[in-house]
Amino acid sequence: MSCELARLSIAAAAKLIRKGEVSPTDLLNASLAEIELHNDGLCAFISVTEDSARKAAAAAELMLSAGYDLGPLHGVPLGIKDNIGIRGQRTTAGSKILADWYPEKDATVIAKLKQAGSIFVGKTNMHEFAWGGTSANPHYGHVRNPWDTSRFPAGSSGGSGAAVAAGLCFGALGTDTGGSIRLPSAINGCVGLRPTYGRVSNSGIVPLAWSMDTAGPMTRTVEDCALIFNAIAGPDPMDVATSPCAVDDYVARLNSGVRGLRIGVVPRYFFSHLQVEVKRAVEQALRTFEGLGAQLIEVDIKHIDGNISAQLTIESAEPSTYHQNALRARPNDYGSDVRALLEVGEMLLATHYLQAQRYRSLLRAEFIDAFRQVDVFVCPTLPFTATTLGATKVVIENDVEEDMLSAIMQFTGVPSLTGLPSLAVPCGFDSDGLPIGMQIIGAPFSESKLFSVGHAFQTATDFHTRRPSPSA
Amino acid sequence: MSCELARLSIAAAAKLIRKGEVSPTDLLNASLAEIELHNDGLCAFISVTEDSARKAAAAAELMLSAGYDLGPLHGVPLGIKDNIGIRGQRTTAGSKILADWYPEKDATVIAKLKQAGSIFVGKTNMHEFAWGGTSANPHYGHVRNPWDTSRFPAGSSGGSGAAVAAGLCFGALGTDTGGSIRLPSAINGCVGLRPTYGRVSNSGIVPLAWSMDTAGPMTRTVEDCALIFNAIAGPDPMDVATSPCAVDDYVARLNSGVRGLRIGVVPRYFFSHLQVEVKRAVEQALRTFEGLGAQLIEVDIKHIDGNISAQLTIESAEPSTYHQNALRARPNDYGSDVRALLEVGEMLLATHYLQAQRYRSLLRAEFIDAFRQVDVFVCPTLPFTATTLGATKVVIENDVEEDMLSAIMQFTGVPSLTGLPSLAVPCGFDSDGLPIGMQIIGAPFSESKLFSVGHAFQTATDFHTRRPSPSA
Repeated sequence: MSCELARLSIAAAAKLIRKGEVSPTDLLNASLAEIELHNDGLCAFISVTEDSARKAAAAAELMLSAGYDLGPLHGVPLGIKDNIGIRGQRTTAGSKILADWYPEKDATVIAKLKQAGSIFVGKTNMHEFAWGGTSANPHYGHVRNPWDTSRFPAGSSGGSGAAVAAGLCFGALGTDTGGSIRLPSAINGCVGLRPTYGRVSNSGIVPLAWSMDTAGPMTRTVEDCALIFNAIAGPDPMDVATSPCAVDDYVARLNSGVRGLRIGVVPRYFFSHLQVEVKRAVEQALRTFEGLGAQLIEVDIKHIDGNISAQLTIESAEPSTYHQNALRARPNDYGSDVRALLEVGEMLLATHYLQAQRYRSLLRAEFIDAFRQVDVFVCPTLPFTATTLGATKVVIENDVEEDMLSAIMQFTGVPSLTGLPSLAVPCGFDSDGLPIGMQIIGAPFSESKLFSVGHAFQTATDFHTRRPSPSA
Repeated sequence: MSCELARLSIAAAAKLIRKGEVSPTDLLNASLAEIELHNDGLCAFISVTEDSARKAAAAAELMLSAGYDLGPLHGVPLGIKDNIGIRGQRTTAGSKILADWYPEKDATVIAKLKQAGSIFVGKTNMHEFAWGGTSANPHYGHVRNPWDTSRFPAGSSGGSGAAVAAGLCFGALGTDTGGSIRLPSAINGCVGLRPTYGRVSNSGIVPLAWSMDTAGPMTRTVEDCALIFNAIAGPDPMDVATSPCAVDDYVARLNSGVRGLRIGVVPRYFFSHLQVEVKRAVEQALRTFEGLGAQLIEVDIKHIDGNISAQLTIESAEPSTYHQNALRARPNDYGSDVRALLEVGEMLLATHYLQAQRYRSLLRAEFIDAFRQVDVFVCPTLPFTATTLGATKVVIENDVEEDMLSAIMQFTGVPSLTGLPSLAVPCGFDSDGLPIGMQIIGAPFSESKLFSVGHAFQTATDFHTRRPSPSA
């Protein structure tokens, strides 16, 4: 019963709360029971904040009884990636450097979730400083994939992905620089949104590469993703990169369907160099959309091929700048893989970095131009399914081993560089039963449309209803 | 008579046109006569576009007679810095690389000035690609200062400054990255505005350092500056860096005065390390403002000292990136000083560049915070008056020779880095009769206020009424 409760969608749990059938404390107990059962195996949480969560759940109950209904997140237990500051709670960013950091202030997204009545069950595990190619965290343990605990959960928001998929919380926040929300969403079978750059405040979040950093929800359904996004989106005077554009009600048009939707596909890039089973699943999803009345339009994006190199350049130079002082003062407190990446980033020339930034403008302009012909693009989230934990190489095709770090960003780098929003949605399973995900990429600030497209898919299919059974 | 006409303010000339006392062709003839007399000596124009200007003046007259009055710039001859593209007219950016470039499209600022009925008498001389520390242009000759033709006119918009000061046109456009509008305005005794970054489109203008590049007017009076700014300010879909903020009517509040105005001064930085006569003139201007009812408030900007280093870093790395291909293909077509600067820029590390950009955010935040206490800052435009033409060193105090490139940016770098608008206004003369200028620096998008402050000063003083008499 506790397990069933813990696996409800946020939307379903919110309805039960309003019917008086469950309380915020019931939801919290359900999540805590799953954490108790599975967190040792999955290593999804760095901290479990049971005490403060219990107080918050009791308060949420009292508020409801006093007629204060703060909306669908009221009393719902969430996991928060550990690079997002919660006042007075340890926020390590997966690092030893920040092992004793207790922020004095909530990140803006946390302040907003508090206003919406959410409960925070704990801080989720992640790559050290959200950087690095594998799921290995040398300080807080390796997150494991709940579908097969010998497999990797991707990252850097791997703890959030594993926790949401396995039912350790009802939803989570992740952060996405080069794919860190979408990759663990795909590989753990969750929904995850990388918002338009500037739509969600980064204030109070430990940066990785500030010109690409975003924060967003990770959930079990598209509807839940929209519910959390409603609470966190919007301008913030504390983050000058946030846009003054008005926010939508991201739930309001959830059921508008895909009839007449023009879906862009880029076969040359997005459907080549990927595992056959991944390709088949995403192509099947395209047929599902066609069956629902959408139209496929082939588009070419002329300069798309440079995106991995540009992304790696920016994602090297910016973190190496941010960490420059700490890396000199405490080199041995960094894990060896992140330290090596930071050291490599210090060797880049300014012209390397700036040519990569100029390429971004070019690529973005090509996509903006393409959005005259199409409403969204659909493509795979990544070219492969979960590999063995700790692997630094991956085989995609022809038995050729490739470096994980560049291979994993093959499709996620495009929204990261262009600033476009991208919704990762589960769309199938491979023959080992491992989840496969697709991305729905939209024009700037078109998150409402992405949710309605994703929701139409989940209404027509049942991939999101299957849940992993991690061995306890 | 022609000389007197050529030296009128735009506002005065516009009145005479509307009274029917002079025609656009009269104004053009007056400018062309001055160009004929003085351009060989001043080298202010790279191209004089007499034919197209005569056609445009004739058209402007016909329009007026048909009842089409396009406003105060209608029929007024302007000079355009040669890095700003005019369709079908040679646009060299002061370089040999672009010696044969005839743009197919007007820069957005040119398209706007055409809609306002302006006449373009020619393209003004400039530093090669707006870069370099001296006024030397190895391809199109050295601009000379009309107050003393053995002196330098500063740059990079030196041709615009000399032409406006000497009456070769009624106003001009310049561009300002690290001070390239304000420095030649100060040293030639003109008014020049560096707008808020993002207030004027850079589309169609050859870039120097795109994160700091701006375009703006150079004129003989503050009122004229506002008249041109009214025509060129505003958002532009062709330049994503332009702000969607609504524009003001920049002339409407010109007479609002300075009573109660809070003027910030930063004695530690802006009034130290400068020539005594420059310091005295700006301090006298502050007393003038006090006499008009303004209040001086001492402010410290804690991290201001890093600005020259940060600016030189950004102004090296971005041009070196932009020119990277051409520098490899045609190294000998660059002048030796610019080539050396571009080569140095290629040696900068990405972390150098990004630390400079991080410093910008810090400095900007300190200024934004200071604008809670003050309305504007007043400071010198540069620490010295015009040196000998071709000098690469300058003596500011204590007989110590300093490198021109960093010394000249001592005060102009602050608005360039922070993106704040800055109006350069003449405020005195040294004992050699050379002009001295001050900057009025405002909060983002406060150009209206800068104009009213500058206009109050010009209403109370007569520095702007003195004109040079260059030897023909």
